[in-house]
Parts: sequence; structure tokens; C-alpha cells
Amino acid sequence: MTATEEPPPPGAVPPMPLTLAQLAELAGVSTATVSKVVNGRAEVGSTTRALVERLIEEHGYRRQRRRIKPASIIEVVFHELAGEYPIEIVKGVQRIAWAHQLSVVVSELGNRHTPDLAWMGDLLTRRPAGLITVFSGPTESQSARLAAQEIPLVVVDPAGNPGPGVPSVAATNWSGGLEATRHLLELGHRRIAMITGPTFALSSRARLDGYRAALDAAGVPVEPELIRQGAFQIEDGVTHTHQLMRSSRPPSAIFAANDGQAIGVYHAAHELGLRIPEDLSVIGFDDMPVWRWAQPPLTTIHQPLRDMGATAADMLISLAKGEPLQHRRVELATELVIRQSTAPFRP
Amino acid sequence: MTATEEPPPPGAVPPMPLTLAQLAELAGVSTATVSKVVNGRAEVGSTTRALVERLIEEHGYRRQRRRIKPASIIEVVFHELAGEYPIEIVKGVQRIAWAHQLSVVVSELGNRHTPDLAWMGDLLTRRPAGLITVFSGPTESQSARLAAQEIPLVVVDPAGNPGPGVPSVAATNWSGGLEATRHLLELGHRRIAMITGPTFALSSRARLDGYRAALDAAGVPVEPELIRQGAFQIEDGVTHTHQLMRSSRPPSAIFAANDGQAIGVYHAAHELGLRIPEDLSVIGFDDMPVWRWAQPPLTTIHQPLRDMGATAADMLISLAKGEPLQHRRVELATELVIRQSTAPFRP
Repeated sequence: MTATEEPPPPGAVPPMPLTLAQLAELAGVSTATVSKVVNGRAEVGSTTRALVERLIEEHGYRRQRRRIKPASIIEVVFHELAGEYPIEIVKGVQRIAWAHQLSVVVSELGNRHTPDLAWMGDLLTRRPAGLITVFSGPTESQSARLAAQEIPLVVVDPAGNPGPGVPSVAATNWSGGLEATRHLLELGHRRIAMITGPTFALSSRARLDGYRAALDAAGVPVEPELIRQGAFQIEDGVTHTHQLMRSSRPPSAIFAANDGQAIGVYHAAHELGLRIPEDLSVIGFDDMPVWRWAQPPLTTIHQPLRDMGATAADMLISLAKGEPLQHRRVELATELVIRQSTAPFRP
Repeated sequence: MTATEEPPPPGAVPPMPLTLAQLAELAGVSTATVSKVVNGRAEVGSTTRALVERLIEEHGYRRQRRRIKPASIIEVVFHELAGEYPIEIVKGVQRIAWAHQLSVVVSELGNRHTPDLAWMGDLLTRRPAGLITVFSGPTESQSARLAAQEIPLVVVDPAGNPGPGVPSVAATNWSGGLEATRHLLELGHRRIAMITGPTFALSSRARLDGYRAALDAAGVPVEPELIRQGAFQIEDGVTHTHQLMRSSRPPSAIFAANDGQAIGVYHAAHELGLRIPEDLSVIGFDDMPVWRWAQPPLTTIHQPLRDMGATAADMLISLAKGEPLQHRRVELATELVIRQSTAPFRP
């Protein structure tokens, strides 16, 4: 399966080892299918996979090492361009792209989480060196179409269902959720509410599971009425805080699954006449630069967004060159950043 | 001077009217120089200009109407990608670009305000349909190089010195500065400080002049010690507020030349134990979505950043198609947005 660049012996037709197209012809399947097998993707039937693998074993496979065309572009697509999150990711992608003299096309899906037909058509016309989708992703059939056109794909902060085996980059969301909750537990809080993100986002599910695990490990029962579902919008923090604080047994601390929702908690607390952190502790997730300036400065879980963007770009460039990836799924470490919105529990 | 697509009569060499290249040859100057003359740019000597204009009068000029290549890109370059300002501009550019099936490359100059040689080289390799620079701009000689390569340029929120006659889009910064100051005057404030932006930015100078004009019109003397120079950073708001409030006659209101600096004022006020707006009124400039969530919500001057981006993209596409511009300099209206950070003066 290693690449070999030696010329074929004279007269040998077809040359060995075989290209993707030759393997496909021999196996009677599409090049996309062979590509999936050689790239370790899961969505191929076991019979077909076995056939292709046998042919590769017999004839060998000549991985096409490619040069990336000069002045090529990397596409980065967000579900929505809003706040500082996209800027941070783009800065990381650019750092790597520019070092390779690639430029970065930024687009958004208008708050949808999967691309539509028109967007995919335009993308295929532009023929980028590769595509990074952020907090959104193509459907399985769209991924297959990209693979068939040899446009590599890396997903950052996966959402939707790009199909198994698609290379991805995320933060250690589960550990981050665990650490946020532990921080509140260590301050003596026991009634800790969580305002989650949307369930279609893996990052959101992982943060919630981390919260549950921390409570469980501390012997604190997980109470369903303290878990509220948001959609990563400031407004969600406002609404849920009003509801939570109105209950007969309100929480003394809130873990918001992103910084925006934490700022919503601030807003509601102000409306309710509650002081942060004296009356209510709040912790966010993301560490957006702007909220260092919140009053009080926000305690949060830092996500290394720039490094996530850079890692995705690195993986994409390897794929575009036909080089093997060292890891298909990368999680970069989160970090607790203690500022002034959390304080010891006061009964 | 109108375009004509009719074939030349047989035997006529060169055909009339003349192309840019033919005019350049006849005049013995570069095509860039002729391009500047026909595009109404100022940086051409008067003798040369007269010569080229005479030739055009004699022979006519055949403006090259062009089709933009499919899958072309528009480049948008910022001095720095930070906060929500770039996102808002990019969203406006994208609205227009996508309608023309163009994609948008975003880059930043690493906090410089003029591109360097390497960046320009890469740009010329990418051959975009056009370039939009935001709060930054090429030098005069770089603009000339772009013109020679027929890459049109539009400047948003001009800074630096792209040369006279370069098409530009801005907000009505002077009127905005006037309106912000008038709002404070109408609330009864007389000691009104201003924290300006950097002097190389035209937008910043215009806002300061608007402030001075409003005070002058109201018969309130302009006091130099109340005018402090910032660089549009949150930190500037913090530092200058501390200095201003420490003086023997502190202001009762501060006009910050952007929202970031206004948030710096909030921060310093909190440190000094001053309440906003009871003890100190604050008004910003930009209307960044995020500061609606500041405590208290920020009164500010709205800049139509998305429309500015869209207008710049419209102008750029016209230029790329070889169509004449209706206006070479566009200023879009600002608007006072009253929220809760300003209140009547209390002696």
C-alpha cells in the first residue's frame, strides 16, 4: 500500500501497482468506492471492501501523490458567520494555508447545518484544494460526491452526519464539560444547572456527558429539571435562567455550554437583581476574547479554536497531496480559565 | 467613449475606436497610465493626461467589456481579523458575490495597514476578479500595479493612502460624530470627552471633526484636554477613562470613537465605582451586535457595515466587467441607536 514512483517495466500493461481507476475497473465498482476503501472509510459494504482489498493485495496500489496547484484555495464553510468563533477558526486555517501559498475562501450556509445542492454545485466548479466544514457538514452522499471528485474534506466541531471515517478535529469537549462542573463542585456547589447546546452537535452532547460524569463521580444526583436545552444563542441563556431561578429550588451555579449563553445568564441575573458571582456562579465554554471584558470577567473553558483551524488545514493539505494522515480524528485539549464569575457556595 | 462591438471595416488598421493598448502605444505611455486617465484617476501628470485625452477625442476609446470568469474570487483584505467588524463586512460582500457566483477570499495583513510585497505577489498569482481592502489599503504604487494588471480595487473605510480617485465606501462618519455629540448635548452634558481612533484612519478624523462641529454649534468650547487619542482597542477606553476621571474637572459624558473603546470605558467606570449612565454617560460608534448585551446595553452610532460590504462588492463587479461607476465615493448613512448607557446630566 506504499506509494512507488518507479517507472513500469516496458511492455507491462497495465503497470503494477494499479491506480485508483484501474482498481475500480477491475473490481467493477466506482472510483469513489475504491477511494473509500484505501482511505479507511467505513461506508462500504463488507463484500466490496474484501474484493477491493484482495485486488490491492494482488496488484498493489499506486497512491497518486499530487502537487497542489499554485494559487489554489481552501474552502472553509460555517453554518453561520456570527460572533468571534468563526474568526478564530479562520485565523488558524490561514496560518497554515498561507505558509503553503493557498488562500482561504470563507462562506456560510445561512444557519443551515448541511450544504444545499446549489452550494455544492458552486463548490465543485471552484475546484478547491480541499474543504473544511465547521459545526456543519455534508451529508453522507455529499461526502461521497466530494470523494469522487477527489476534493478532500475535514470536519471541525462535527455536526450533522458527514459519514463515518471523515477526518475531524474537535476540542476535548467531554473533558471540558467535566472540568467546568468539577470546578463548581470544588467551590462547594451542589445544585448546578446546565444550559446545553443543540443535540445535533456532538460537542454539545459531549459537554453534557462530561457534566453528568462529574456530578456522578462526586455522588451528586443528576436532576433532569436542572438540565435545559439551548441552541448556543445568548437568548437561550436569558430564558433558561429566568425559568431556573423561578423554581422552588433554584441552582446556585450554572454551567452554560458556550460563552454566549453564559452572557445570557448575566443578563437575566441582572434583571432578577442577582449578583454574579455572589448570588450565582456562572461558567461558560469557548473563551471568546470579548468576554474577558464582561462584568465580571467570565470564568470559562478555553477551546483552542485557532489550533483547531490550523490542525484541520494541516490534515487537509496532507490529504490534497495524497499523503496518509497520522490520525483521522484529533481532539485538542481544553483548559479551565478561572476569572471572576464563579465563587464559593454560600448557603 | 461608448463601447462598440462592431467589426472593423476591412483594411482599417488600427480599428477605431482604440483599445487601451493601442492608445498607450500611440501616446508612448504605459497601459496603466491610460487606464488611470480613462478611469478618472488623479495620479497622472497633466501633460500626459492632456495627450491621452486628445487621442481619445480623436480616435475614440473602446472600453473592454469583460465577462467575469466563472468560479472567480473576490479578495477581501482586513488589517486585522478581530471582533465582529470583519464578519459584518464579509457578510455584505458575500451577499453580492454569491448572487454572481463569485466566492470570497478573506485575508488579513497582520495588523499592518498596507500590504507587503509577498502578499501582493500572491494576490497577483491568484488573479482575483477584484480586491476590496478594509481599513487598510495599498500604497499608491501598489494601486498602480493592480491597475496595470486590470485587477479593480475598492477601499472600504479608507486608511493609509491608496491614492486619489480610488473608489471607496464609508459610513457618514462626520455626521455620525456630530449626532453622537449632539445626543449628549441634548441630554444637558457640557463637559463631553472624546476618545478618538488612530489619526491615519479617515473615519477617525471625520468622527472627531463631527464632535468638534457639534460642540462649536452649541457654543460649547472645545477643550483639548478632553480629547484623547486611542487606537480603537478596548484597552484605550480603559486607560483614557482613568486619566479623564482623575482630572480636577472630569467629564460627565464620554464619546468613544468605536464600541470597543466604549466597553473599555465601562470597565474603567466599574473599577472607579462609577455607575453608567447615572454617574457617567457613554456613547460608542459601530453598533456591534454583541454590545446590545453589555450591562447596560450600549447607546451607539450604527454603521451599516453589511451594506458597506455589499456596496463595495457591487462597485467591484461593475469595475471587473468594465462598466462605468455611477459614484466613485459612496458614504452610507449612520444612525443614532439610543439604548441605556446615556442619561440626562445631573449636576
